[in-house]
Amino acid sequence: MTLLYKADPERGKQWARLFAVKAPDIPFRLWPDIGDPASVRYLAAWQPPDNPAHTLPNLEVIFSVGAGIDQFDLSGVPPNITVVRMVEPGIVEGMVEYVTQAVLTIHRDLFDYALQQQQRIWREMPVRAAVSRRVGVLGLGMLGTAVLERLRLFGFPCAGWSRSAHRLEGVECHAGVEALDAFLARTDILICLLPLTDATRGLLDKRMFAKLPKGASLINVGRGPQLNQQDLLDALESGQLHNAILDVTNPEPLADSHPFWTHPHVRITPHIASATRPETAVDVVLDNIRRHLDGLPMLGQIDRGRGY
Amino acid sequence: MTLLYKADPERGKQWARLFAVKAPDIPFRLWPDIGDPASVRYLAAWQPPDNPAHTLPNLEVIFSVGAGIDQFDLSGVPPNITVVRMVEPGIVEGMVEYVTQAVLTIHRDLFDYALQQQQRIWREMPVRAAVSRRVGVLGLGMLGTAVLERLRLFGFPCAGWSRSAHRLEGVECHAGVEALDAFLARTDILICLLPLTDATRGLLDKRMFAKLPKGASLINVGRGPQLNQQDLLDALESGQLHNAILDVTNPEPLADSHPFWTHPHVRITPHIASATRPETAVDVVLDNIRRHLDGLPMLGQIDRGRGY
Repeated sequence: MTLLYKADPERGKQWARLFAVKAPDIPFRLWPDIGDPASVRYLAAWQPPDNPAHTLPNLEVIFSVGAGIDQFDLSGVPPNITVVRMVEPGIVEGMVEYVTQAVLTIHRDLFDYALQQQQRIWREMPVRAAVSRRVGVLGLGMLGTAVLERLRLFGFPCAGWSRSAHRLEGVECHAGVEALDAFLARTDILICLLPLTDATRGLLDKRMFAKLPKGASLINVGRGPQLNQQDLLDALESGQLHNAILDVTNPEPLADSHPFWTHPHVRITPHIASATRPETAVDVVLDNIRRHLDGLPMLGQIDRGRGY
Repeated sequence: MTLLYKADPERGKQWARLFAVKAPDIPFRLWPDIGDPASVRYLAAWQPPDNPAHTLPNLEVIFSVGAGIDQFDLSGVPPNITVVRMVEPGIVEGMVEYVTQAVLTIHRDLFDYALQQQQRIWREMPVRAAVSRRVGVLGLGMLGTAVLERLRLFGFPCAGWSRSAHRLEGVECHAGVEALDAFLARTDILICLLPLTDATRGLLDKRMFAKLPKGASLINVGRGPQLNQQDLLDALESGQLHNAILDVTNPEPLADSHPFWTHPHVRITPHIASATRPETAVDVVLDNIRRHLDGLPMLGQIDRGRGY
């Protein structure tokens, strides 16, 4: 009943220590030191090995160490192997922090004040009340919901869009493709927290930007390939968008020559909005292993048809 | 029973419109068009005129249009004139936004990521959990209290220091000069929200910085003269402080040659953290005028002995 860990080796050492303390009955292995392949029933990975069913003949569950599973090539994973994404409080806390900082940075003109500082300009800009700054979140999963709950407290009018219907207190919820235009038309700060699927690839493009109010802002904390980067540059150039905060790009990192690095209205960070924390992630994985042994559904289990 | 307004003329026009709608019975005058000086009983001002009792012989109350009254020269104001500072929700909301953004900017290393972006470096830094980042607020008035209430929600261990004893849920409250060292020793991000008085002038100096944990950060949203600016530069140079976010400086604006403008670990903004909003400020002043007419104490009335 071994768990094999195949991701960042430094974090892997923390996982090993935590497993030794919390679950001494579950043998723990750090890739590539897999021991007897036949004893591995659980894999915690950022990317599974090629042909996992062949390498690990008794594998039952693959736990993603990230919030999404878009980095997995599921075509090589037979359907009898269950795939589980990471649902843990460290990811949520980090995302709420990052997005709150990003929204307030835009709301309080701190991009523009940074440019003024560079030019030694001391000039007050008019303050807009939060009640007149409309925030909208694409994606109402665990992360989108937590982000909206926090942003509401600042008084921003909040809306969310999702493929399926949701109800969230104090949040105007829009559902389905036909509701997207109305959602965009009322959104001054657009936050993307969608999973990467065929339906969301390239979704953040010029058609979408054109439906936002002129001068709107974009925060992408989803995945890089959801954004058409050239369309964003064009929208910033025309003034249709005022600025963008991107924690994800395509590729990662961007080429040294990419204009985002030096664009005065683009902030990029190296995919750090939110990361799994070993302390809490191990608890979640152990809880899921117990559920699995008891024949219960696991938290974050993937629907292979939908892809998330 | 005229109210005379003597501050920013643009905002004064908004006050005039709001008074006309909300209190048509109270004559409103915009400085310097004061009409009959003997009819002025209330003055709303950023700075009162010289010798106000002489210029306005029947003046009863001076309302500051700012949160503080340190800009007033009270020596020229006789004791029979009541002085009232501005206590209104727009000031609180703006301050909570600004300080939350500043704390999260420091907490999530966004200063350092901005420097990396300038150098086209894509490098993840370790994320510290909020529970290990200790926030401390100097000053537990209306603003300090509101800021701590919001920051608590992110999971930061929160403490406050004030001259007199306070109790705030979930906040470690320290009181009095003898408690200051213990408060500083546990504070990774120090936020100054004190009023400017003789006791707080120059308080943020090298002695105070030396008592913070090495690598701490400073957010000054109090008043510029509370900070010894050279001591801050020295503390940044030695690494005792890692960075600083300053909404106030001394003087305002700084000279073009001041090193803060270009310091990679200093962010300055032009005293915009929080500003009185005419819509809400007029309501507060009208409520206080009604209280005054009824012989009740006004909200924000100044104790001339303490100076705040």
